[in-house]
Amino acid sequence: MTESPLQTPDEGGAARSPSDLPVAFSDPSYLAAVVDLLGAIAYGELSAFERLSEDAKMAPALSDKTELARMATTEFGHFEGLRLRLSELGADPFAAMEPFVAPFDAFHVRTAPADWLEGLVKAYVGDGLAADFYREIAAFLDADTRALIVESLSDAGQSRFVVDRVRAAIAAEPRLGGRLALWGRRLMGEALSQAQRVAAERDALTALLAGGVDRPGMDLAAISRLFSRLTENHSRRMETLGLAA
Amino acid sequence: MTESPLQTPDEGGAARSPSDLPVAFSDPSYLAAVVDLLGAIAYGELSAFERLSEDAKMAPALSDKTELARMATTEFGHFEGLRLRLSELGADPFAAMEPFVAPFDAFHVRTAPADWLEGLVKAYVGDGLAADFYREIAAFLDADTRALIVESLSDAGQSRFVVDRVRAAIAAEPRLGGRLALWGRRLMGEALSQAQRVAAERDALTALLAGGVDRPGMDLAAISRLFSRLTENHSRRMETLGLAA
Repeated sequence: MTESPLQTPDEGGAARSPSDLPVAFSDPSYLAAVVDLLGAIAYGELSAFERLSEDAKMAPALSDKTELARMATTEFGHFEGLRLRLSELGADPFAAMEPFVAPFDAFHVRTAPADWLEGLVKAYVGDGLAADFYREIAAFLDADTRALIVESLSDAGQSRFVVDRVRAAIAAEPRLGGRLALWGRRLMGEALSQAQRVAAERDALTALLAGGVDRPGMDLAAISRLFSRLTENHSRRMETLGLAA
Repeated sequence: MTESPLQTPDEGGAARSPSDLPVAFSDPSYLAAVVDLLGAIAYGELSAFERLSEDAKMAPALSDKTELARMATTEFGHFEGLRLRLSELGADPFAAMEPFVAPFDAFHVRTAPADWLEGLVKAYVGDGLAADFYREIAAFLDADTRALIVESLSDAGQSRFVVDRVRAAIAAEPRLGGRLALWGRRLMGEALSQAQRVAAERDALTALLAGGVDRPGMDLAAISRLFSRLTENHSRRMETLGLAA
C-alpha cells in the first residue's frame, strides 16, 4: 500500500492505548485496512454532504430544499463519528481520507445531475450501492468497527422522501422514466469503475477482502457472488423508484 | 402587511392551542410580527447553511472543508428549532420564510465571495451583524421567543476558527488586509441595503420595533442609537480580524 496515515498521530491526543482496542488491531495490516476503509467511508460521507447541499439549490420548493439540507447534515453527522473513530485508532483522519478524494471527486464530476430529479435518483441509488458494499465488507471486521459502519450507513428517512418524489414525477410525466432509467444505469457503471480504481490502488483494503491467516476472506467465487448481490439490490432499488434497471 | 402565513396551519398539527402560548400572543399583530421575525431568521439560517456548504468547496484543505461543513450543519440545526417554533405558533414555516427569500438571495448574489478568505470574512462579519440585529429586536419579545432567538444565534466555535485563519493569512501576506477591509465594508453596505428593503415591505416587523399600546417600542432616536451600536460592533469585529473598518 501507499503511505500510511498511521504515522501521524491525531493532534487531539484522542488515540486509545493499544490495549483498549480489540485484539484484531494487534495485526498492523488489519489496522491499516480498517483505517483505509473508514477513511473511504468518511470521505464518502463528506462528499455526500457536499453533493446534497449542492443539489438542494435545485429544489423546486423551500420544503424540498430543507429535506435535502437535512439529509446533508445527517451525512455530516456520520462523518463526525468516523473521524472520531479514526483518531481513536491513532490515525490522522484527513490523511486517511486523502487517497479517496480523487476517485470520489471523479465519480461526482462524471455524474453531476442535470436537474433536481437526477440528483434525487443519484442520492438514492448511489448511497444504496455504497451502503451495500460497505456492509458486505463490515462482515469481515471486529464488532466495534462493524457497528460503527452499520450506524454510519443508516437511512435517516431520506429514502421515503426520494421514492415519493421520483414516483410522483414519473406519474405526472411518464417520459421521464426512460431518461431516469438510463441515468441509474450510468450511475452504477461509474460507481463500479471508480471502485475498481480504488481496489487496484489500495492493497490493504483488498487484502482485507482476501482474508488472512486467522481471518476468513473471500475467494474469487465469493467475490463474484458479492457483485451479484450488489447488482440485484441495485435493480430492486430502481424498481422501487419505478424505473427499469 | 402582505399575505399572512398564519392562515395555513402546519400539516403536522403541531400547533399549540392558544392557551399554551404566552399572553402576548393574544394580540394578533404581535403574533404576526413574531412569525415574520422567526421566518426571516429561519430563512437566514437556511441560506447560511447553503452559503457555508458552497464556500466549503473553496477550502484549501480537508480539515478546513470539515470546519465549514460543521458550521453549516450548526446553522441547519438552528433552522430546525425555528421551523418547529413557527409550527407551534400555528404558522406554515415555509410561507413565513417566503417573503425573505428574495432579499436574502439578493444579498448573497451581490456578495458572492471570490475566494476562501472572502468567504470566511463574510461568514464572520455577516453572521455577527445579523446576530446583533436580531438580538436587539429580541429584547422587545416575550421570554420564550427571546430565548429561542438567542439560542439560534449562538456561536458554535466558528468565530475562533475564522479569526485564526484570516489573521494568519494577513500575517503571511499583508497586502491581503486592504482587499479584505474593502470587502468587509461592502458586506456592511449590502446588508444595510437589504435590511431597508425588508423594513419597507414588512409592516408587522417594523410595527414591532415601534411598539404598541402595552409594549415598549423605539422612537427615531432609539433606532438611530441601535444603528450606532450595530456599526460599532461591526468595527470591533473587523479589528478582531486585523482589518481596518
